[in-house]
Amino acid sequence: MSGPDADSAVFRYVRVEKHLLGLIESGTLKPGERIPSLRALGARLGVSVSTVNQAYLALERRGMVEARPKSGFFVRARPARRPAPQTSILPATPPTTVNRSALIREVLNCMGRHDIVPLGVAHTNQDLLPTKQLARLLGKVAANEPRITEYETVCGNLELRRQIAWRLGESGITAQADDIMVTAGAMEALYLALRSVTRPGDNVAIAAPTYYCFLQLLENFGLRAVEIPSQPDCGVRPEDLQTTLDRFDVRAVILTPNFNNPDGALIPDPAKREMVRMLAERDVPVIEDDVYGDLCFQEHRPQCLKSSDTTGNVLHCSSFSKTLAPGFRVGYMLPGRFAAKAFEIKGTTNVCCATPTQMAVGRYLAQGGFERHLRKIRTVIERQGRTMEERILRHFPEGTRVTHPAGGTVLWVQLPDAVDSIALFYAAKAKGIGVAPGSIFSSSDQFNHFLRLSYGGGWSPVVEEAVATLGRLTAALADGSRQS
Amino acid sequence: MSGPDADSAVFRYVRVEKHLLGLIESGTLKPGERIPSLRALGARLGVSVSTVNQAYLALERRGMVEARPKSGFFVRARPARRPAPQTSILPATPPTTVNRSALIREVLNCMGRHDIVPLGVAHTNQDLLPTKQLARLLGKVAANEPRITEYETVCGNLELRRQIAWRLGESGITAQADDIMVTAGAMEALYLALRSVTRPGDNVAIAAPTYYCFLQLLENFGLRAVEIPSQPDCGVRPEDLQTTLDRFDVRAVILTPNFNNPDGALIPDPAKREMVRMLAERDVPVIEDDVYGDLCFQEHRPQCLKSSDTTGNVLHCSSFSKTLAPGFRVGYMLPGRFAAKAFEIKGTTNVCCATPTQMAVGRYLAQGGFERHLRKIRTVIERQGRTMEERILRHFPEGTRVTHPAGGTVLWVQLPDAVDSIALFYAAKAKGIGVAPGSIFSSSDQFNHFLRLSYGGGWSPVVEEAVATLGRLTAALADGSRQS
Repeated sequence: MSGPDADSAVFRYVRVEKHLLGLIESGTLKPGERIPSLRALGARLGVSVSTVNQAYLALERRGMVEARPKSGFFVRARPARRPAPQTSILPATPPTTVNRSALIREVLNCMGRHDIVPLGVAHTNQDLLPTKQLARLLGKVAANEPRITEYETVCGNLELRRQIAWRLGESGITAQADDIMVTAGAMEALYLALRSVTRPGDNVAIAAPTYYCFLQLLENFGLRAVEIPSQPDCGVRPEDLQTTLDRFDVRAVILTPNFNNPDGALIPDPAKREMVRMLAERDVPVIEDDVYGDLCFQEHRPQCLKSSDTTGNVLHCSSFSKTLAPGFRVGYMLPGRFAAKAFEIKGTTNVCCATPTQMAVGRYLAQGGFERHLRKIRTVIERQGRTMEERILRHFPEGTRVTHPAGGTVLWVQLPDAVDSIALFYAAKAKGIGVAPGSIFSSSDQFNHFLRLSYGGGWSPVVEEAVATLGRLTAALADGSRQS
Repeated sequence: MSGPDADSAVFRYVRVEKHLLGLIESGTLKPGERIPSLRALGARLGVSVSTVNQAYLALERRGMVEARPKSGFFVRARPARRPAPQTSILPATPPTTVNRSALIREVLNCMGRHDIVPLGVAHTNQDLLPTKQLARLLGKVAANEPRITEYETVCGNLELRRQIAWRLGESGITAQADDIMVTAGAMEALYLALRSVTRPGDNVAIAAPTYYCFLQLLENFGLRAVEIPSQPDCGVRPEDLQTTLDRFDVRAVILTPNFNNPDGALIPDPAKREMVRMLAERDVPVIEDDVYGDLCFQEHRPQCLKSSDTTGNVLHCSSFSKTLAPGFRVGYMLPGRFAAKAFEIKGTTNVCCATPTQMAVGRYLAQGGFERHLRKIRTVIERQGRTMEERILRHFPEGTRVTHPAGGTVLWVQLPDAVDSIALFYAAKAKGIGVAPGSIFSSSDQFNHFLRLSYGGGWSPVVEEAVATLGRLTAALADGSRQS
């Protein structure tokens, strides 16, 4: 769950949830006991009934309470406290040269194949995206905009940048159009950011586990990875970042504070602010990947590192690939104090982004339906995620642990009895199921017994059956490893 | 002029041209003498009347003959043999760290401004491009292609790649769709190619002068430039390449064999083949920029380095930015034996290119009007170029030399009396005229007295006046430098 911001009205229900959690954990509310009605608790805490309801639903998701028809909410007799997957016991690993590309390539080759159930790809089901609306806008742009075939500026379409600047207010970021550079997806933003702040041989701190493309980027640029453990319940902690900065000559940090891929971890907003302060003091730039921030399961999205950046030290990267149209390749970056360098690199990478898709996304945002669209898909994606979580616990053998993310599109599964996820990857592939083995999410071997499964692709009988099959395969591998 | 391929039917007229040139230079055909009629020479040499006509027009362009109304072609009384701009006297410069970015940035800041006559930008006049047709196709794609918002594959749209593969036959390149990767313009192709074959600190051989973006790329990747002189009449010569390869540990070569930017040099096809062989033997990859190859002033375009590549050692880069739609960002690369590396780098740069613009260009090419369009714009662009050449010789002071390119969109002007082109750049900017000073086309200072002027932007009274103004400014600077 998110760490609530004491100053923020939007996270009110999280305070209510914490209050109730305290009552349950201290034994004040006992297993089987009915918890106060929405109305009663709302009146007592001075919050609305819907806020209390949100808190109760969150507690239900955490397995602490259960709803009984027409009777209200009850403390679960034996709270289903599923242990979260473990993280590394190392506070930080020394810098290592990254060499994961061969394995990543093998996994990627499996992705995108139509004969394979795509649980290995972190994408959003096409049916959830406003495809028809975007196609219509692109058609309009093609018909009415004479400049459609001309170069855009290196920084990108001005109207689009205005719309992005306006939207960033949602994340607590104050920005002008001039602070923004349009990029071909978040991937290009991250590439530009990393090139803007590093030189070959530099140490770059990343979360462990982290998105495998970051490891590829580091490998390709001859950078060395320093891994900081990410906790599924709170992500990278300020104290662990500090230890890393103290011990190693870190020249840049890459973080995905909102729903880290693959463990779904959300860094609480106060911790974000603390880390931004810490990094600014030490003059170490931080690259923020916020590609999942809009896919939170709460009504209001969490803040970003960039929200409290006063020195231009945060390079904020995001895109519309998970929420609108991956094929339009429209992402963006706020390069902060590295704007001149980022500009130069973009110019010598591909000059600028395609003009028509920028115009179409700009018009879509200007129409004002984006927030409504986000609310809709958040609900559907959360439901898909909860269903997959439940099915994993049902079908996978005893000892399997799974995350309970508050946003994003992936689950991080710890396999029991040291089942090797690469063996599982091959066994699943033979059955026509794509998965992402844990080993590609770190340059160390600490996640060899983890698996990332994506629930963003939608729920269907095929997916249902695939999860059951994965459970059986895991059980067979666990039996095998116990016997050997 | 192109070096004709002895085996090729398409360059037949070049043989006719050479035959006549021999007759003129040996004195067999004397100044003022009428040269044989089209029909007579065609019958004698066993070629068609139109082939002879092409040869006569080429000779006219070279100033060797002149057409007199209703009388035919005559050898010019005093052939207008204007001296070509000089090249470096150094056979090759030792590796140097590149540091031209600050100056390039200053020049670029001036470009793209609407209050400035854009003679500094090498682009094609928007009016010459089939903008309406492309917009209509984009609209159709938006209306009919359900996959328009989805990711393309990393290599790009298959139909587009099929069309490109088919078109490459024009350049003598045999390729399949699978040999091609779609890129965001030729710039991205060049970026991917350079990253695929080099590591920081490597020596990369480039032409002198060369396109300034290559210098920026080298600088940004920590690569060292080895400059090989380019001759305006034949480009980089095989013997100069060989000297460079013998003297320095060169890890890659970048060449623009067809109409090198800025000097417009065309490497004869036999020399291309010799260099491809030489580089393959030494296992030194060569990056070929063919972005101007389609803008040749002959009916049939010259061949490429890639045309004779049998080992996959040539990374061929081009785009449709100069001929169709710069804002669509559709270019391509044939990465040869570096395909796996290029694939990986594209994936971690921006995953893939925008889907709709790839589809629209694919459909445009499939319709089959591209060659007709090219023929049309080649004629217009050549006329613009010849006009600008003539006006430069008219308005600039005595001693000014200018290239007479057989394709492309730029003229390379050598200023007289050591006029400093950076001084001219500032003087021109103050008058609202953008130019590209020679110093940005080399990491050495050998082109400080050169200027690149673009004629691709169209001819107009404003451009006419701007060229006259530049001539006056140059004269004033020449006077100043003589007096000081």
